[in-house]
Amino acid sequence: MGGKVQNQNLKGYIGEALKKLIDVNAYPGDLIEIEKPGTPKIAGILMPRYELEEKSTLIIKLSNGYNIGIKITPETKIRVLKKAVVKKGVAGAPAPLSELPKDLPNEKVLVIGTGGTIASRIDYETGAVKPSLEANEIIQAIPEIINYARLESEVILQIFSENMMPRYWERMAESIERAINRGYDGIIVAHGTDTLAYTAAALAFAFHKGLPIPIILTGAQRSSDRPSSDASFNLIASVITASKAPFAEVVVVMHGETGDTYALAHRGTRVRKMHSSRRDAFQSINDLPLAKVWPWTGKIEILNRKFQKRGEKDVLLENGFDEKVAIIKHYPGMDGELVDLLIDKGYHGIVIEGTGFGHVSDKAIDSIKRASESEIPVVITSQTIFGRVNLNVYSQGRKMLKAGAIPLEDMITEAAYAKLSWVLARTRNLKEVSKIMRTPLAGEMNKGHDLRYFPRWYHG
Amino acid sequence: MGGKVQNQNLKGYIGEALKKLIDVNAYPGDLIEIEKPGTPKIAGILMPRYELEEKSTLIIKLSNGYNIGIKITPETKIRVLKKAVVKKGVAGAPAPLSELPKDLPNEKVLVIGTGGTIASRIDYETGAVKPSLEANEIIQAIPEIINYARLESEVILQIFSENMMPRYWERMAESIERAINRGYDGIIVAHGTDTLAYTAAALAFAFHKGLPIPIILTGAQRSSDRPSSDASFNLIASVITASKAPFAEVVVVMHGETGDTYALAHRGTRVRKMHSSRRDAFQSINDLPLAKVWPWTGKIEILNRKFQKRGEKDVLLENGFDEKVAIIKHYPGMDGELVDLLIDKGYHGIVIEGTGFGHVSDKAIDSIKRASESEIPVVITSQTIFGRVNLNVYSQGRKMLKAGAIPLEDMITEAAYAKLSWVLARTRNLKEVSKIMRTPLAGEMNKGHDLRYFPRWYHG
Repeated sequence: MGGKVQNQNLKGYIGEALKKLIDVNAYPGDLIEIEKPGTPKIAGILMPRYELEEKSTLIIKLSNGYNIGIKITPETKIRVLKKAVVKKGVAGAPAPLSELPKDLPNEKVLVIGTGGTIASRIDYETGAVKPSLEANEIIQAIPEIINYARLESEVILQIFSENMMPRYWERMAESIERAINRGYDGIIVAHGTDTLAYTAAALAFAFHKGLPIPIILTGAQRSSDRPSSDASFNLIASVITASKAPFAEVVVVMHGETGDTYALAHRGTRVRKMHSSRRDAFQSINDLPLAKVWPWTGKIEILNRKFQKRGEKDVLLENGFDEKVAIIKHYPGMDGELVDLLIDKGYHGIVIEGTGFGHVSDKAIDSIKRASESEIPVVITSQTIFGRVNLNVYSQGRKMLKAGAIPLEDMITEAAYAKLSWVLARTRNLKEVSKIMRTPLAGEMNKGHDLRYFPRWYHG
Repeated sequence: MGGKVQNQNLKGYIGEALKKLIDVNAYPGDLIEIEKPGTPKIAGILMPRYELEEKSTLIIKLSNGYNIGIKITPETKIRVLKKAVVKKGVAGAPAPLSELPKDLPNEKVLVIGTGGTIASRIDYETGAVKPSLEANEIIQAIPEIINYARLESEVILQIFSENMMPRYWERMAESIERAINRGYDGIIVAHGTDTLAYTAAALAFAFHKGLPIPIILTGAQRSSDRPSSDASFNLIASVITASKAPFAEVVVVMHGETGDTYALAHRGTRVRKMHSSRRDAFQSINDLPLAKVWPWTGKIEILNRKFQKRGEKDVLLENGFDEKVAIIKHYPGMDGELVDLLIDKGYHGIVIEGTGFGHVSDKAIDSIKRASESEIPVVITSQTIFGRVNLNVYSQGRKMLKAGAIPLEDMITEAAYAKLSWVLARTRNLKEVSKIMRTPLAGEMNKGHDLRYFPRWYHG
């Protein structure tokens, strides 16, 4: 069966690359060595392809887990160093660079697939990338993982994350609860990166009363058939975190910096996608990351000792999210019109991303008053991203408080939106909503400041 | 006259501090020395007060320009080292720490006051801060400025920046145009920090065809009667930039880092308030700052050589902003309702802060199509702040382009909003709007990338 799978996978290769692979009888999963005139030899595992634009290029995975593309010319020499190991129950798994462990580890980790770049490949019709691979196909491509855990996978959604909705958060929470009861040591949710931070916060609130194991959300900024893909790196780091981390929190595990050095585990209520394309786009806001995770050694280095410990609590899910919640970002000249429209349309709650300390214009304050009088909570975050809402410093802030605005301290907008959606599914009583919103439940709000929270800019 | 002004100013002091000041005949503007048992002597210029909460505290300005508060106990000793110099035409100016220059500099700089913390003090009725000081009162408190320029001031607005509106941008642009024609070497706009970045971008577009001198926007994160105020530091740096900088651009000059070392001059279309309260809250996004400005030596260090040179172009103002423009921030579960409401309410243009590469949900795409069909431009930025919109990578992006979405590359939301408001006041033709929005006019869009643009986070 392994042979057949390999044969099929070779079809993605074309031109000189295909010719040479056939010449030496090499298939995806084999450890091969490539020699080009004038450059050092390079060895790695031949990867399957899903038709890329570049012609006659081989993709190999290096021993550090990084995938690179090598252009094959007639002068290039290819040698097979080791054929793929095909074991029963690990269908199509390629040869690991190190020997397979004699006994598989005891830790059991579940990967829940929801879609996104981490499970995507190029669409031949349009040339664009669209979701298509199942999570378990990806896992098969990363043999290092079996050093850390017995992996299982389950695909519950196949969507890009811009189409994520609170109702899908509920479905994920249900799947996670069921999986916890089946006895996993950690659960990984593979998710599109665009709204991953919102989902992480939502799950953190749904499970804040009881979580015995870590729930890891991860994704990829570059798709898994691109040489610069971060899919494998993030998945290995996620498996290490899921199987070994001392915390039982909802965290996001993604590249920590541009290089392939370490990943970071960020608290789910404190993380934000801060760059459209960089692999280290995810960073902690107003908090320190929980841990550094080193995928090549399996080491977890704790950076932040404030966390819920593994195994201390039984699972307790409070599921349900209200979808009639909106975010409004304040801008110069904004009046109350947008808030009024949301009130008229029957929205149940509004997050306003105010300016600076959370301020809005005089005209918008009238609409906040109208919302509060209609028992519709209006919670306030700051569009500065870093820092803290404070409506007590300036007279404008005091007017807002009088109108009923609910200031959310140093909570980020993503967490505020997820929390408000979650709270409104429990109670619509304005006083209760306000009280719960201003009570920290899952590390989303802090009194303390730390100069290190603000990143350092390049100033020459 | 000087004596009378000083006498009145002393009234802000109370308790032991007032008693000791009367004992030694010291008034605001005098250089005094304070000696407390067990601590080194400290000298500085006694500052006027506007009734703070702390009792019996003196505020002095140190030789580095930093204001500090010192608690006065019965054991404290105060000595007057030098009385304030009161010169005709510089009413109430306190003694500079160094001798006054024999000849005032030739450079003429205008400070235009618009309100904000930089011109605010505590409101005794509510205990909160509200705008009240005129810009020229502030200037009088910072004698160092006369080493760099002959200063004049003009107050055109007295509002906090959350109440800023495009119509006020027009008024500022008019005042600036008139002032340029009167022959200043540089113009400073003192502005509240909350929406300062939007105003900076707006002015940059209004003057992009012709600006002979630098226009500096500055503000204060902490009010000028607080010991940690950044008002003086930012104003001195702004005066240096206005009088000497080699560029003729609209820039924002504010603290570069937490310490009182240097200020940064950021391009007006590339700057964002990134923290609610830090003095170095303003940072360049997707670009390098134009220059470092060192207030204690008057040095300007160029960091970015791409700029419009001083004196190369005559002033050419294209004024006018459309106020029917809105910003929408995409969130999970967002459908097209908000966009539809804006279309129905007769808005002329919409900025959508999409996720990641600029994506929105399937449902929102239908509404973008509806807007485009109604000749209402929908421009797309990214809520990741850093990076670049790219609607060509994923199928969702292609669908958005087909629906008429206008991707704004690496332009930040603040600049996109100001530019769309400015463009719509020139043309409502969708094709023309799209073309102008995607053509760089004032450094707001770049093809190039630079790893240094992304700040470095603390990771232990």
